[in-house]
Amino acid sequence: MQEFSVLANTLANTSGAIARGYYRKNFDVQSKDDKSPVTIADREIEQRLREMIEKQRPEDGIIGEEFGTKDSQNGLTWVLDPIDGTKSFVIGRPTFGTLIALWEGDTPLLGIINQPITNERWVGIKDKRTRFNDRLVKTRNCPSLSRACASSTTPAMFDGLPPVYENFEKDAKMMVWGADCYAYGLLASGHLDIVVEAALSPYDFAALIPVVEGAGGKICDWDGKPLTLKSDGRVIALGDPALWDEASKLLK
Amino acid sequence: MQEFSVLANTLANTSGAIARGYYRKNFDVQSKDDKSPVTIADREIEQRLREMIEKQRPEDGIIGEEFGTKDSQNGLTWVLDPIDGTKSFVIGRPTFGTLIALWEGDTPLLGIINQPITNERWVGIKDKRTRFNDRLVKTRNCPSLSRACASSTTPAMFDGLPPVYENFEKDAKMMVWGADCYAYGLLASGHLDIVVEAALSPYDFAALIPVVEGAGGKICDWDGKPLTLKSDGRVIALGDPALWDEASKLLK
Repeated sequence: MQEFSVLANTLANTSGAIARGYYRKNFDVQSKDDKSPVTIADREIEQRLREMIEKQRPEDGIIGEEFGTKDSQNGLTWVLDPIDGTKSFVIGRPTFGTLIALWEGDTPLLGIINQPITNERWVGIKDKRTRFNDRLVKTRNCPSLSRACASSTTPAMFDGLPPVYENFEKDAKMMVWGADCYAYGLLASGHLDIVVEAALSPYDFAALIPVVEGAGGKICDWDGKPLTLKSDGRVIALGDPALWDEASKLLK
Repeated sequence: MQEFSVLANTLANTSGAIARGYYRKNFDVQSKDDKSPVTIADREIEQRLREMIEKQRPEDGIIGEEFGTKDSQNGLTWVLDPIDGTKSFVIGRPTFGTLIALWEGDTPLLGIINQPITNERWVGIKDKRTRFNDRLVKTRNCPSLSRACASSTTPAMFDGLPPVYENFEKDAKMMVWGADCYAYGLLASGHLDIVVEAALSPYDFAALIPVVEGAGGKICDWDGKPLTLKSDGRVIALGDPALWDEASKLLK
């Protein structure tokens, strides 16, 4: 685990340096087939991280947002989102992050959320307490939905679904928008109680699981099942697992 | 104007120190009559800034989010939002800001957007170029809506209105949520093209006008009229004023 952790932190350092180099500079923003934006920074980060992994651990698999899947020969797979929150990156807002995860089969071993502008890093490791910039963190107690701060990235995630975000707008204490992966870090640090999202890909949530669980939170799909790399992309994270009974009613 | 500018920057420094003291600490979050949240930091900042203004300029009026209106005896009025984006402040996200404006009658003379965690400050002064951390900034060209990055704080702003944000989601290049006053700063710095919002109060937009206009942008109500302290709270800011023809069609 020590080797994995050192490598993952080195990948985070490298991605941060590349992101800082492009942040608020002029660069082209292209639209992918799913209309989501991509920049040279996304591509350069993922390419560089893949090279580093392949050099040090040639048998590990890699799943990346921009360059697809390399099959694993040993059961271990790195899951990379070079820039989660590309829209925030594009407008120069420091709430995007690089997500780096290592899974063994269906089990997440390690996850990093790295924000390179404000220099904030959450590191989650299976069966260990989550660290934020090297300090231990934990989620906060919030036994009641009416006292919960909830968050999501964009209402467009919920297109074609039941009125889930409207339910949270109505019943939670407040709803905050646009926080990308940063929201899950804030939840792990005890500043936020719920993140509810849909239409996520495995590289969007793979790294979040060890961060949230290692801080005492619960993260699962909307049916309450553990997330796997085959999950349907509907994700809810709760700082206080006791919120599940109330929150799950709003997901139907 | 020099005296006003020095005082406004001193107010921004003072508000920043108070905000940093509470940021990510434990504090109570209360709900106001309009269900918007307020914290001890909002109240302490506004109280302190009002004291400073009253001491140095006793005849100036003050309009503040938390403590109401003090009438002006000389035509000059300070307009204060101690924490714009209280929800972001509450969840520990550094996109909130303190807004400080000085108006003479219906004319905005000066506006500051201050982000005290990332140490970012936009200063707009009537008939002068806007400065970001002391460097001159300008908005960017974006002649076509299909190439524009648009932003808004929350879909709840548009409750009961025509499907305006849905129009921007569909026709703009991308739509980013949850940026509070920070979005107008990013627009002034040329990273974002459109901010469209509703249900704003004068203290939410009073400081934004000199910042946006001094960077070459346009900011007005949804009918294209200049904002006044009596405007109805529907606000649009355009980095490139040439976007008005296309954007205004989506506001109907």
